[in-house]
Amino acid sequence: MTMNLTQKIIAAHLVSGEMTQGAEIGLRIDQTLTQDATGTMAYLQFEAMGVDRVRTDLSVSYVDHNTLQMGFRNPDDHRFLRTVAQKYGIVYSPAGTGICHQLHLENFAVPGSTLVGSDSHTPTAGGIGALAMGAGGLSVALAMAGEPYFITMPRVVKVRLEGRLKGWATAKDVILHLLGLLTVKGGVGKVFEYAGPGVETLSVPERATITNMGAELGATTSVFPSDERTRDFLKAMGRADVWKPLAADDGAQYDEEVVIDLSALQPLAAQPHMPDRVVPVASLDGLKVDQVAIGSCTNSSYADLKGAVSLLAGNRVCAGTDTLVSPGSKQVLKMLAREGLVEPLLDSGARLLECSCGPCIGMGGSPVSGGVSARTFNRNFEGRSGTKDGQVYLVSPLTAAMAALRGCFTDPATWGEAPAVADLPAEVPSIADLFAYPPQDGAGTEVVYGPNIVALERFEPLPEQLQAGVLIRLGDDITTDHIMPAGAEITSLRSNVPAIARHVFGRVDEDFVTRADALENGVIVAGENYGQGSSREHAALAPRHLGVRAVIAKSLARIHRANLVNFGILPLILEDKADYAQLEQGCTVTLDTTLLAPGAVVQVTVDGGAAVAVRNDLTAKELDIIRAGGLLNYVRLSKTAAA
Amino acid sequence: MTMNLTQKIIAAHLVSGEMTQGAEIGLRIDQTLTQDATGTMAYLQFEAMGVDRVRTDLSVSYVDHNTLQMGFRNPDDHRFLRTVAQKYGIVYSPAGTGICHQLHLENFAVPGSTLVGSDSHTPTAGGIGALAMGAGGLSVALAMAGEPYFITMPRVVKVRLEGRLKGWATAKDVILHLLGLLTVKGGVGKVFEYAGPGVETLSVPERATITNMGAELGATTSVFPSDERTRDFLKAMGRADVWKPLAADDGAQYDEEVVIDLSALQPLAAQPHMPDRVVPVASLDGLKVDQVAIGSCTNSSYADLKGAVSLLAGNRVCAGTDTLVSPGSKQVLKMLAREGLVEPLLDSGARLLECSCGPCIGMGGSPVSGGVSARTFNRNFEGRSGTKDGQVYLVSPLTAAMAALRGCFTDPATWGEAPAVADLPAEVPSIADLFAYPPQDGAGTEVVYGPNIVALERFEPLPEQLQAGVLIRLGDDITTDHIMPAGAEITSLRSNVPAIARHVFGRVDEDFVTRADALENGVIVAGENYGQGSSREHAALAPRHLGVRAVIAKSLARIHRANLVNFGILPLILEDKADYAQLEQGCTVTLDTTLLAPGAVVQVTVDGGAAVAVRNDLTAKELDIIRAGGLLNYVRLSKTAAA
Repeated sequence: MTMNLTQKIIAAHLVSGEMTQGAEIGLRIDQTLTQDATGTMAYLQFEAMGVDRVRTDLSVSYVDHNTLQMGFRNPDDHRFLRTVAQKYGIVYSPAGTGICHQLHLENFAVPGSTLVGSDSHTPTAGGIGALAMGAGGLSVALAMAGEPYFITMPRVVKVRLEGRLKGWATAKDVILHLLGLLTVKGGVGKVFEYAGPGVETLSVPERATITNMGAELGATTSVFPSDERTRDFLKAMGRADVWKPLAADDGAQYDEEVVIDLSALQPLAAQPHMPDRVVPVASLDGLKVDQVAIGSCTNSSYADLKGAVSLLAGNRVCAGTDTLVSPGSKQVLKMLAREGLVEPLLDSGARLLECSCGPCIGMGGSPVSGGVSARTFNRNFEGRSGTKDGQVYLVSPLTAAMAALRGCFTDPATWGEAPAVADLPAEVPSIADLFAYPPQDGAGTEVVYGPNIVALERFEPLPEQLQAGVLIRLGDDITTDHIMPAGAEITSLRSNVPAIARHVFGRVDEDFVTRADALENGVIVAGENYGQGSSREHAALAPRHLGVRAVIAKSLARIHRANLVNFGILPLILEDKADYAQLEQGCTVTLDTTLLAPGAVVQVTVDGGAAVAVRNDLTAKELDIIRAGGLLNYVRLSKTAAA
Repeated sequence: MTMNLTQKIIAAHLVSGEMTQGAEIGLRIDQTLTQDATGTMAYLQFEAMGVDRVRTDLSVSYVDHNTLQMGFRNPDDHRFLRTVAQKYGIVYSPAGTGICHQLHLENFAVPGSTLVGSDSHTPTAGGIGALAMGAGGLSVALAMAGEPYFITMPRVVKVRLEGRLKGWATAKDVILHLLGLLTVKGGVGKVFEYAGPGVETLSVPERATITNMGAELGATTSVFPSDERTRDFLKAMGRADVWKPLAADDGAQYDEEVVIDLSALQPLAAQPHMPDRVVPVASLDGLKVDQVAIGSCTNSSYADLKGAVSLLAGNRVCAGTDTLVSPGSKQVLKMLAREGLVEPLLDSGARLLECSCGPCIGMGGSPVSGGVSARTFNRNFEGRSGTKDGQVYLVSPLTAAMAALRGCFTDPATWGEAPAVADLPAEVPSIADLFAYPPQDGAGTEVVYGPNIVALERFEPLPEQLQAGVLIRLGDDITTDHIMPAGAEITSLRSNVPAIARHVFGRVDEDFVTRADALENGVIVAGENYGQGSSREHAALAPRHLGVRAVIAKSLARIHRANLVNFGILPLILEDKADYAQLEQGCTVTLDTTLLAPGAVVQVTVDGGAAVAVRNDLTAKELDIIRAGGLLNYVRLSKTAAA
């Protein structure tokens, strides 16, 4: 049977399910990565599983999102990440080493492997031929424990590249073109697989720019073949041994096909406030640019930065255009330094920031009020820059550098000859020894938490006879923001469940936590669509910490329902919505949980008298997870049973 | 008459007063500098004076304190500073160019000149032989307008340097030694003037490290002679033309004398939490160091950084010791880059931050909880690092680098041979064209404020017949924190008087502002010691914005009283403290202000009936200032009268 590249990688990693579009499939995961903003909770969850060492080929913990260390919590997070990595066999990349996706591509990604990362731009490694997917922290924790990663078998879109980029058009313009064509919803449930004669004209970092920003299409991931260009890149990185050729079979089938003629592309820009609002840069001619920001996991390779610096060198950026440059990795910065490009960069008036995500994730670098910012990044959502009325345009590094020099967008027809930049210098310096590699046996390592990082507790299994008090009765359409409010202060407690739990329902009912404290077990009663909104796990985890064992609602939102299961809270649905009236705050309910079965209707006794019928829509496995006290316990038990 | 160096510079700039120790003297100011944290208000005040161009030889506006640009306010501040500089003839140094004092020393400071800066470490320029003093923003604004700067004629301390630094001892250890000897209060009211045969053994940047941290002695300033070493430095900087020799006359008199034998010094450290808690580094042998931070206006010269990098090069910093390096200027970073030192710095595992104050002013780089941080900075006050229980030790760059490599403090006896580092490379690159120089005529420049920057209003003169409502009656010991609360949110409004004024007395009486809004003129009634605490000007400026025209108190704190005068609010003292009872909140008082004279007792009528006697302790000039509506109006009027 002929297969496309996506099918080949999936088939080689399939542990459950059938490769039928729309079916749930389980994949063996070779590599994981985390960044600091999501990593802390992922490792707390991993620790709670009781596994003594990661079971992947490779797991890497990067610090790149918040490297500023304003106050103790941030450096304490970094210390926790460093020590937990040592203990469990994870490679650690300290703050300032670079951006996770850039570093992973250069140092660790392997063609044909599977990679799950707790960051939405994990598909960057698709540029080297990995099947690389962004996921939540718990999924990454499970993958580190050797559990499969479950996805819906995707539709595979063939993106046939023809011709060759010309003039000022770059890889960034390829993906901007695709975004303009397909929109930010155009990739949902799909893998974008690149093919055709244009593939070999693109370097691995160029391919990675394209797969990186496939995330903005909403795609499951994007992937390029592994070919001679891939071999050249890996060889330059000192990793020729991991190369293997990889491509779709001749005559492979695809669910859709898009054709892009590379030679017809021109410099493009995504206008505020969506990555698919794409227009030619020429159409923005004359628009004043207040800020230029070059970097991010999308566009901070050696060639990206060298291209920009080659334009800036010997020139001065416009006085009114604040120009920020964040190299993607120390490796990139070293290559620039070795070629003597740091000095001309500084002389141009540009600002050299640390090798990190920086302004891309709003960690500094906000534009002025109402200011236009030309950024080589991947997202331009309203307010993401930190300036609510900032006008962010997503462009290539060459377009950004020209905007910095001219102080405004101009027509590329006036830019003259585009610079010719090699993919990589003849000799690429290594930064392999800047990573902290774990010892063979980390058992003796002390994990240092700091006062704001608290190990996840082990929750009790579901009691056979559940007796619990109704802690609150809520109306319809309660969101996860109602349950677990966000905001800077509360978010900073995300690694400290006991502390963040003090804020559960804090903006709805100030006394909720006090009531929960007074009882061993609690129940939340709600109307329709309980738990709508974000996917935040803390909206289940924090109530469970407070003793919540069940939610009884008229209906539940899908993602929150899954989170309740994961943290051992029973999601129960009122068989008769009118019974809602009986479940007043303060009453006590009892339930024989041994009677629960998938889809069964059981009786809940109210204050020892009237009975209320509730049903569930749980699978047998989900019921087992809840009985075990949540997914972390469930995994721990199955590991113990297997041992 | 023989004079010491301090007396010579003062005599050459004296415009009022007599050079008798303790007398008030007025000095003509040649140069000013501001940094961004204090500069915004200084320029708003300058603008409010109605002067069309700075009247100094040179005024420079540096952006170095907050270069992070988290949210719109910070980049808006930078844009305001850039445009206001263009308009009024001020040189502007953009974010990322470097630290004000380092840049000023390298590019602008002149031997024998006077410099006033709105930063306490302005005495750094004393290393080149300038009389350089830190001051409040209003004083700097007045100096820019050509007004004299008033100080108390200081005591002059001769610091006689003998011998020559040996082994691992550095200039930082000279000033740490002096701090240990004299304590942080040892310099109040004094100028430290360096002399003796040891002077010529120190380079200008080494001298500047010493004068910089003279601020921690509480000194008015510190100053070195201008000699051949000074000429060499200025020549290397391309500024040989501003050099002139400058030294005390033979047989000059001093008020005190201290002798330091440079050859007897060893590496020292100031222990938490005060710069005078000085011990030998050897005594800290074995103490684990969690963080090392190299940089700041005290220790970020070329030689400082090259010394540290020469130790780090070819080695790796300890995995548990987060090592941050912030070069003092792009010029310093360029010199390192040109010598190929960026790559070994990165390879050592150290983090290269932007050229700015950074961690020294708590702008990132906080240590871990309870962590020990070895810093080349000037202050180690509790909590200043951003981590309340952080343990900050102040050390030299060499000591810091050794701590980074070993992960703990160690005895310098085990360090081997100290590196020999030249003052400067043979050829020093210029960054002169990274500054934005103002046009000859800036009248056409539009100053861009942004929504959080509001030009200072012009306050009305004091009415001859003042009628005002008592807005609040307060008890004893009201602090400036009660009047104008601080905290991150409120502090971010410091350039927006109408907005920050909404918080006046906000933590004492939520309705104060509403009551003030309802009346044209208001009076604050208070008990003893009103306005104690900080020197913040907003505690007078914001109430004045709300219409407060007088404070009637049992007694007033000295600095706040001066601020009330500066912003046109009458400070009145109850002749009979028992009358406090009559001045209830809500009553209306009337006063014939034409009757006010220095020291006079006048009657205030309460609700048209009873009279209350109040006196004042104002000078005739202070009364004129208040009648004019404050110091800014007063200056504007005198400029107009002079024109």
